[in-house]
Order: sequence, then C-alpha cells, then structure tokens
Amino acid sequence: MRAVDLIRKKRDGGTLTTEEIAFLVGGIESGHVADYQWSALLMAIVWRGMDKAETAALCDAMMRSGEVVDLSGIPGAKVDKHSTGGVGDKTSLILAPIAAAAGVMVPMVSGRGLGHTGGTLDKLESIPGFDVNLDLTEYRDVLARCGLVLIGQTPEIAPADKFLYAMRDATATVESIPLISASIMSKKLAEGIDGLVLDVKCGHGAFLPDEAKARELAATMIGIGRSLGKKCVALLTNMEQPLGRMAGNALEIYESVETLKGRGPQDLADLSIELAAEMILMAGIEPSIEAARQRAVRTIEDGSALERFRQVIAAQGGDPAVCDDPLRVLPQARKMVPITAKTGGSVAAIKARDIGQAIMLLGAGRERMDSHIDPAVGIQFEKKVGDPVAAGETMAVLHVNNEMRLAHALELAEAAIEITPEPSVPPLGVILDRIG
Amino acid sequence: MRAVDLIRKKRDGGTLTTEEIAFLVGGIESGHVADYQWSALLMAIVWRGMDKAETAALCDAMMRSGEVVDLSGIPGAKVDKHSTGGVGDKTSLILAPIAAAAGVMVPMVSGRGLGHTGGTLDKLESIPGFDVNLDLTEYRDVLARCGLVLIGQTPEIAPADKFLYAMRDATATVESIPLISASIMSKKLAEGIDGLVLDVKCGHGAFLPDEAKARELAATMIGIGRSLGKKCVALLTNMEQPLGRMAGNALEIYESVETLKGRGPQDLADLSIELAAEMILMAGIEPSIEAARQRAVRTIEDGSALERFRQVIAAQGGDPAVCDDPLRVLPQARKMVPITAKTGGSVAAIKARDIGQAIMLLGAGRERMDSHIDPAVGIQFEKKVGDPVAAGETMAVLHVNNEMRLAHALELAEAAIEITPEPSVPPLGVILDRIG
Repeated sequence: MRAVDLIRKKRDGGTLTTEEIAFLVGGIESGHVADYQWSALLMAIVWRGMDKAETAALCDAMMRSGEVVDLSGIPGAKVDKHSTGGVGDKTSLILAPIAAAAGVMVPMVSGRGLGHTGGTLDKLESIPGFDVNLDLTEYRDVLARCGLVLIGQTPEIAPADKFLYAMRDATATVESIPLISASIMSKKLAEGIDGLVLDVKCGHGAFLPDEAKARELAATMIGIGRSLGKKCVALLTNMEQPLGRMAGNALEIYESVETLKGRGPQDLADLSIELAAEMILMAGIEPSIEAARQRAVRTIEDGSALERFRQVIAAQGGDPAVCDDPLRVLPQARKMVPITAKTGGSVAAIKARDIGQAIMLLGAGRERMDSHIDPAVGIQFEKKVGDPVAAGETMAVLHVNNEMRLAHALELAEAAIEITPEPSVPPLGVILDRIG
Repeated sequence: MRAVDLIRKKRDGGTLTTEEIAFLVGGIESGHVADYQWSALLMAIVWRGMDKAETAALCDAMMRSGEVVDLSGIPGAKVDKHSTGGVGDKTSLILAPIAAAAGVMVPMVSGRGLGHTGGTLDKLESIPGFDVNLDLTEYRDVLARCGLVLIGQTPEIAPADKFLYAMRDATATVESIPLISASIMSKKLAEGIDGLVLDVKCGHGAFLPDEAKARELAATMIGIGRSLGKKCVALLTNMEQPLGRMAGNALEIYESVETLKGRGPQDLADLSIELAAEMILMAGIEPSIEAARQRAVRTIEDGSALERFRQVIAAQGGDPAVCDDPLRVLPQARKMVPITAKTGGSVAAIKARDIGQAIMLLGAGRERMDSHIDPAVGIQFEKKVGDPVAAGETMAVLHVNNEMRLAHALELAEAAIEITPEPSVPPLGVILDRIG
C-alpha cells in the first residue's frame, strides 16, 4: 500500500477502505506517511467528502492511535455530553452534576475556548485551585468517587487527532463535516463511554451557523458513534443569542451554581435539564424522557446536584465554597460598563458571535491558543431577545479589567444588541429538534 | 500574508494575486511556507484550477526561484522546442541541428525518460562520451560555437520546480494542466530563450491521450509564454503509434542520423522539418512558413544539418563518427526477436503506450527515476499503420539483451500491433493542427 495511491483514489472521488484508512492513520506515528501527504489527503477529503463507513473508520483509527480508557471496572453506565460550542454555553457544568446525582457516571473530557467560543476548562479554572490536568489514574479515581470528573485532553488520548488537528489548522482543511465529526468522536469515544449526548448548535454564534449543516454534522457524529457500538442522540439547539444571562469564565461558574440552586435563567435551565434527561434515559436509569426530565429536576430541588458539583470541585483541588458564596470565591472585574438602550421597543436580536468577539477583546477568550485568559471579565445581560426595553434602560453590563480594547469591545457589543420598535417580539426557542 | 489564508482562498475557488503567488513560491526557499502547506495548496489547485494570470504568475515565480540564464551576449534569436513526450519521439535530435544550420540559436535543456516515454538525454548518452551535464558557462560556450547545445537541467534552473515536482509526485497532484504547464514553461523560459515551439502530443502514447486536454495544455503553455513576453506556437501531433520506425535509445540516434541524411521515415522527417520550420520562422530568418520549410529541407540536402550535429557531439565530448558509421559506434543488442503477422491484411494500429511499456521492460526506459537504462535495446518496425501485411511476414524486431522479461515484453508488443483483414487502411496523419 502506498500513500500516494490512496491520495489519488480520494482525489478522484473514490472510497477508502477501512484497511487503507488504518494504514494512513498508522503512518502518522510510524512515519511512512509524510505530513505533506496527509495535508494533500485532507484537502482531497474537504473536496470529495467521506461516506459513513470511511468517517467511522477514520474515527476508529484516530481513537486507536492512543489509549482507549477502560472504565469497565467502574460500575454504572458511562455517558458524556459534547457540545459544538457557543457563547455562554455552560451546560456541562450544570448537567454533569445533575446526571451524576441521578446515577449516571459522567467521565467528561473537555476543551478550551478559541475565538468567540468559550471552553469548559477555562471556566473551571476560574474556580481557585481547580485542576483540570488529571492523569488517567486520577481520572478513574475521581469518577468512581464522585460519579463525575471534569478534565482536559491527556496526551494518551487520540494523538493522531492532535496531529491532524494541527495539520488542518495550518492548511485550511478544518471545514469538513467528516473530519470535524471524526475528530470530536475519536476523543470522546476514547474516554471509555457507553453513550454520548450531542448538543449541536446552529445560528449566529455557532461553529456551523447554518441549520442544514448542523443537522448534517449531528447525523454524521451519530452515525460514527453507532457504527462503533455506542449509543448516541443529538439535540439541535439555538445559538442565535448567548445562552443564559452571563458570558465570561467566572461569571458562567456563578450562573451555573445559581442554576444548580434552581435560580438559573429559563433557557439555560431548560437546555441543561433536557440534555441531562437524555443522559439519564441513555443510561437506562429512567424508562422515558419524561421520567428522566422529572428525575433531573428533582436533583436540583433536593440539592443533590449541587452537592455533586461541590464534591467534584473538592476532589479536583478547587474551593468548594464556590457553591455557597460564589461572589466571594470567584475573581471579580474592577469595572462595570453598562450598555443602555438608545430607543425603546423590544430586543430583536443579540448576535452571539459578536458578543463572543467583544468579550474575547476584554480577555475572556483566546485569539490564539497561547493567548492569556482573564477569568473575571465578560458580559451580563439584563435583557434577552423578546424582552421589552425602554430608552435609557440597561440592557447588559460589561465586566472589565483592562480598558485597552474596551472601546472596540463596547462598540461590538452595542451593535450586537438590536432593538425593534415593535412592542412584542417572540422569545427564541432553545431546543429546535431531537435527532437520533 | 499567511499561507493558510491563501490556501483557504484557493480552496474556496478564489483567484490568487501575483503577489500572493510570489509569496507562496518564495516561501519554499525561505521556509515560511511549509511543505505540508504547499501540498494542500497543490490539491486545492488540482480541484479549483488556476486562471491564465495565476498560471503565468506561478510559472514566473518558479522561473525566478533560480538563475534565469542571460544569453543576450550571444547574437541571434534563441528558440527552443519542447515536446510533451512520446514513444520514438526523437525530433529534438533532428530539428536542433536543422534549425542551427539555418541560423537559429538552439539552447536546448532536455529531460530523461520515465515510464513508457523516452527522454532526449538518455538517447544522447548512448553516443559514447556524450556529456549532457554541462555547467552554465560550458552551455553558453557550446551554444556560441555550434549554434546549438543539448544539456540536462542544471541545479541553478528553477529549484522551486524541483521541489514542487517532487511534492506533486508524492501527493497525487501531478494531473493539473496549470501545474504541468507552469512546470514545463518555468524550466524552458529560464534557459534564456526568445521563443518556444511546442509539440503537444495526443493519442495512445501521449501523456494526455485526450485531444481536448492536449489542446488545453497547448493553449495554457502558449498563454504563459506570451504573458511573459516570449513568442510561442504549438503543433498538435499524433502519438497513436510510435514516431518513426525505431524506439530505444541507440536505435533512435541511428534513425536521427539517417533522417539528417535524408533517409528517414516519412512521418519523422515531416514532423522534424515542420517543427524546425516553425523555429526558423519564429527566429525571423525566413518570412513565411513555406520559405522556412524549404530552408529546413535544404540543410538536410546540403549536409549542413548533419555537420552541426557532428559539431555539437564533438563539442560535448561524444564520438562524432556516429554521424558517419552509426552501427559501428553505437551499442548493439545481442539478440533480434522478430514479431510476425499471424494473419494477413493491413496494420490497423500500433498502440504507442504499450510499445513504450514493452521496450521499458527490455531496459530501454525507466520504471523509476533510479532505474538503469540499456542503450542498445528497443524495437524496430518494418510495418506502420496503413501498411499491407501478409501472414508470417515480419512486422517488427525487438532488440534484446536481457531475456528475463522478454516473454512479457513480446506479449505486450505483439498485442499492441493490430491487424485488420481490410486490404486498405489510411495511414495516420502526424500533424493534426497548429495552435497559436
């Protein structure tokens, strides 16, 4: 088998076999496939696509390039959730304790934010002392003790994905649904899970704003998961406006704690409970989605979800007092800058991507992977789409430390919030569809 | 400027500017464009193509990556010919002395054979002592003294093309008319020529068998040449059957000498004279193609073309006696293996690519760039397409040294010569069209 012949096959629209894909992925580590051959192949895949079997084979080979964690020694169904990312999307921090409190084992490996999108690890690190860099032994141990664990990708997990991810980033071959799907799923399936609930976003702030593309991504990821013997379901959700009322790392921890106390904003609470219910159903703990939903709600009402969050924070070195007095424990920004309505009417849109860009300028996110993050900064919304607003009323507040790029951030954020003179605008639904 | 943004632009069907292309080609030497970025870009170019201006800019940047030879110190118009290659295609060896004898300066940089296609350098090296590896000073000197020079590519010429050629070979990105054209033209234009006559082959033995593709290649190369201020014209010629009656390195030198003596086969003589006439016309030596044609014929009749060949052979260290007694000077194969007609009728086809493969198996050509060449072996045709043939009559003779792969070669060659019971088949025309 020669890499050049396989590149030619894909270039000409052919279908690679499982053995051919295993040869190509294996060649990354062995060196018998050069990086410049892989990048040409990646461009051919962007051009020609991959069918279901090819995509599953690619994911499987990437997963097997590293350690596939064996969690069979820990009793219970292991179910994780993956979101394609957005602005203010902190559901992991809420649903993982809920699902764990309901009896699901939640081994969660998360990523960092990039561009306008936040990342779960960055949010967790705004809790003083919280360590996301556990090794696989600690990972198993925290999971067994708390029913959930929240870590970053370890070097043992899917090294071929790390190589291909860097290669795609440097060669403009990121935008391919089979490649995106195989990359996500190879890492998730290497965690040792039995099932995965996917939160696939569409709308202004989503990685794939177009709903049809988002549906294709969901179907592709579900196809991979099922091909490899895992349970999979996806919710298609709305990322037109930021999720919840806060975006920014410490602010999102605060809002997550509030939501675990039953005081969260409606959209965030609804989505977190629905995703947790899917996990509970998938784990076989409840027989119907309705029963699973009620079970999830009960873990908030009886405090057991918040208690799980407290436990995992303590187990991973963080200050559990964040669950009791978050405003004291979490870092606070020095300056509050309100955004007021210039005219009255109703909030017609809060363009999520632009909000993400604005708070990235304040230091809440990364422009590049090596950018520094300021955990305290972000934005807090007083109004969301559909809310009435009077001229001069505060719509949002920026939390600011470094004022260097404040003017630019403020301009972006102000323009992102659109007001219509209409007295009534329907609020945006969050859950658009269930796929799977 | 970042390579990844330019790759994305081409991936999405955009048009690269001259500055962007210069940045990308310059990045090969400077290292600011990685090889894996170039290979992804090459695949995007195979996918999306390049327009006329992009192709010319690529060629220009590749040409300028090395030394562009300055021949302005040598008086006279410098005109070269390039052929896209075929089987039995030895016109360079004939037309270069003809054109030189007519007063054209012919600075010819040629290549080696690969696969079923022969190469001028390999043919020349079957002349004992002939040295194709001159440096640029010797190159200028032989040209000034003889009016022609016949060398291989030097390291100073278009190093970016060497890099890209190797990259394309390893990444299945060879088959792109803009990339092929820019590669050919970058080397040719770096020779220091004023004009170029192209012999673009189509048919069974050609690099691009399809006539429409061959026309596209011709038009693209002419477009590049003219964009960069050079005179260019192309003949579209037939490579269905081998050109002339001999294929194999020493055999083709023999046939070239015979043709320079006015005793060559019709198709070879006609094409060599026509290409030489185009060079004479382009150099402004004669006012019309008809006058140029007559001038070319006269250089054969008066022996001046053969004399030029003798001179350049002597100047490059070869034995000039090859012009007087080629059978004594050239290496001979040990064994002659005839191919006889199984039935009578007419020769309907001699499939050039299969003939090229057959003699490659005997050692006349290279399977890989590092394969060893046997100069003595090859094939000699007694019959060509259109000739009547009786059952049992000899159609061709294989010249063989190593019998290891003879059976396979014989089988291929026998199958390549097709006989029809029809008493009369029209001979194949050689020159199909003039483009430019």
